[in-house]
Amino acid sequence: MDYDTIAAISTPIGEGAISIVRLSGSEAVSAADRLFRGGKALSDVRSHTIHYGKIVDPATEQTVEEVMVSVMRKPKTFTREDVVEINCHGGLTSVNRVLELILDQDVRLAEPGEFTKRAFLNGRIDLSQAEAVMDLIRAKTDQAMNVAMSQMEGKLSLLIRKLRQQLLDILAAVEVNIDYPEYDDAEIMTTKILFEKATEVRERLDRVLSTARQGKILREGLSTVIVGRPNVGKSSLLNQLVHESKAIVTNVPGTTRDVIEEYVNVRGVPLKLVDTAGIRDTEDVVEKIGVSRSKELLKSAELVVLLINGNEKLTDEDRKLFALIGDTPAIILINKADLPLEVSVTEVEHLAGGNPVLRTSMIDEKGLDELEQAIASLFFSNNVSSHGEAYVSNTRHIALLKQARSAITDAIEGAEQGIPVDMTQIDIKRTWDLLGEIVGDTVSDSLINELFSKFCLGK
Amino acid sequence: MDYDTIAAISTPIGEGAISIVRLSGSEAVSAADRLFRGGKALSDVRSHTIHYGKIVDPATEQTVEEVMVSVMRKPKTFTREDVVEINCHGGLTSVNRVLELILDQDVRLAEPGEFTKRAFLNGRIDLSQAEAVMDLIRAKTDQAMNVAMSQMEGKLSLLIRKLRQQLLDILAAVEVNIDYPEYDDAEIMTTKILFEKATEVRERLDRVLSTARQGKILREGLSTVIVGRPNVGKSSLLNQLVHESKAIVTNVPGTTRDVIEEYVNVRGVPLKLVDTAGIRDTEDVVEKIGVSRSKELLKSAELVVLLINGNEKLTDEDRKLFALIGDTPAIILINKADLPLEVSVTEVEHLAGGNPVLRTSMIDEKGLDELEQAIASLFFSNNVSSHGEAYVSNTRHIALLKQARSAITDAIEGAEQGIPVDMTQIDIKRTWDLLGEIVGDTVSDSLINELFSKFCLGK
Repeated sequence: MDYDTIAAISTPIGEGAISIVRLSGSEAVSAADRLFRGGKALSDVRSHTIHYGKIVDPATEQTVEEVMVSVMRKPKTFTREDVVEINCHGGLTSVNRVLELILDQDVRLAEPGEFTKRAFLNGRIDLSQAEAVMDLIRAKTDQAMNVAMSQMEGKLSLLIRKLRQQLLDILAAVEVNIDYPEYDDAEIMTTKILFEKATEVRERLDRVLSTARQGKILREGLSTVIVGRPNVGKSSLLNQLVHESKAIVTNVPGTTRDVIEEYVNVRGVPLKLVDTAGIRDTEDVVEKIGVSRSKELLKSAELVVLLINGNEKLTDEDRKLFALIGDTPAIILINKADLPLEVSVTEVEHLAGGNPVLRTSMIDEKGLDELEQAIASLFFSNNVSSHGEAYVSNTRHIALLKQARSAITDAIEGAEQGIPVDMTQIDIKRTWDLLGEIVGDTVSDSLINELFSKFCLGK
Repeated sequence: MDYDTIAAISTPIGEGAISIVRLSGSEAVSAADRLFRGGKALSDVRSHTIHYGKIVDPATEQTVEEVMVSVMRKPKTFTREDVVEINCHGGLTSVNRVLELILDQDVRLAEPGEFTKRAFLNGRIDLSQAEAVMDLIRAKTDQAMNVAMSQMEGKLSLLIRKLRQQLLDILAAVEVNIDYPEYDDAEIMTTKILFEKATEVRERLDRVLSTARQGKILREGLSTVIVGRPNVGKSSLLNQLVHESKAIVTNVPGTTRDVIEEYVNVRGVPLKLVDTAGIRDTEDVVEKIGVSRSKELLKSAELVVLLINGNEKLTDEDRKLFALIGDTPAIILINKADLPLEVSVTEVEHLAGGNPVLRTSMIDEKGLDELEQAIASLFFSNNVSSHGEAYVSNTRHIALLKQARSAITDAIEGAEQGIPVDMTQIDIKRTWDLLGEIVGDTVSDSLINELFSKFCLGK
């Protein structure tokens, strides 16, 4: 199918050494050609070659940018369409100007994710692979990246396709039974086959779903809140975590300037530290935001790190914080281990109610390894690896896999209860459909549009 | 000369569709080859071609990224060395991992600006062109971009080289005079030539220096402060300016999270709005930051926009603000023109002391065109264009041109006063040296290092 030609800035917005305007579609080369002044016309060059030249405003022939232009002809491109990448000098103004001029050439501004959407629509990748592209971009740790990469390479797709083939085999067997009901034992045989094969499918679904919790944490980060009374060392802990973290720490500005999410890489687990701005600013989150907001914050957290001053007796405020934790997994730090121990460890352990209690000192950098170990073992019983098993991390995929498991369970139970196979057939068909939604074989246009709209511009 | 091989991430840091790791140096291709798995080894491909494949960790052969690799062999490259660009999927984690793996291959992390520095050291561009590369990246408006582009294309370099040639011609004439003093009229003739030619050079220097004020504003933005009592409409004005601005508005986080610089494009003039965070937050900068800080702010500003509430009588606070402006160019807005006029226009005009006074309404969007016009005509008597004349915008260049002008003036005055030509020769030589510093012919290594260190990483 032929779509119109689209263009967008494909590098992150900001000051950098290189910015790229990417075009895709049948008019990509000719549109770029009208602005390009170099040794050769782009329409005359071989595919997958790079050309030095200038982008000019065709109305005035004034130079707008000095560029390297890559010409890649279909089908061996990201979108399976003709792709042109105009490699500019990295300034916001000039790359915007180049894009503006391109958009004057009957080229449309690409929607977020539209390049990847075309790769999907043109059959180069399936939906789960397309989603993995975005996961790869957003990966906060190497392990998260490995999961995304394995999904992009098609490990999950392969599993889904295998399962769907098995479901088709069951459906075919059922079909035979329905078409030739004159064979007496056909119904019994079919039910047996259905039961066995469906149970196999369910076991495989269970195995992949067992990776979901870890996968989701790797993909989205572990929402973590650090609490404690003023001056117990919260901001020091934060700084230690950020400092220790060998991988990238990114600040993601939220909708307001105050809300900052900070990602810290703890042994491959991406901690998404919440409300760190508050910690840095006031050292006293609870007082600042009030108890009700604190409760909310702690409730939505997936991990709470509670700091206690080991050099003081417990206060009522400390006890209140313990009460606020509730059922959220927590790690208690008896901090200031460099000073004499004054707090009652017994009481702290009692209040901790089974949550790990560690002694730390931010000054001597004591206990930080133990903290990281505690976090890792709370959430990762075994090491994550992209080798071997397919991994599932995407909430949409997890939900569909759970629904598919429920549908196949209906089929299995039907078979057990001797319900006619042409009835259980419906459940098998539903399982097949649900799995199809993961790879995008059975999925509505509106869902596709919604999924790709979450992508970044230029991808 | 042969340098070691360097690498860096050359796209802005952030989430985007494409991230690039760039390598330059004799080992660039072989280093990339050790990590690249594709159809062909990169060492076997033709120059300026693009290749699809994977980057693997060579220790485990595990896939790290799906990439397009561009191979460009010297000398037709940005650095005049072998250049490899590894085009990744745009995630921070994966591009960092690719860079890490590259740096394990006897490749060194590039210093900021080191790619451009090599382009300079290898003679592809001169120093003023190298500086223009960075100006282009930082350009805030199309006009600023045009100035940078024209400098990058070598317009300023060409002018400097012409002037230096003229200076060499003078020096040659002087040399003849010194070598053959037996010719009686030689000294007179030489002085005449020196005077005429040096005057020509000075005129040309004056012409280019006349572009300096505008050039500097285009390059660095016009530091602008919006002041006024609470609720006179400062934040509405800010929003209007940001909204009206067709070009890019960038927020540049400063050293603390509070200080935000916002650039607004007013008819090609980049206004650098100072302390806009304060305006948005409190609508009351002066009260918040105190009078002494306000004074400082207004003093360092290049333009003050003072808002008065037209619907109220002038207050002492208004009068205090007028007093604070001092000699800084200012535009006075009698705002809220949608409401009845209560303020004494005569008094405002008296207090304005010759500064333009406009009536505006943020609600009816009245007077905004006039404001933009006033700003443009305060700072740009004529239109800026990169056609024709060389433009100077860089503070370093301006300073050197001024010093050169002063040196050549010494020579001219010496000639007028009949000082022996072999004495004025020294001034001519000094002018020649100073101009040489602009293009980098006569410049110290430490200055070169300092200049390039201000570049962004990966450029």
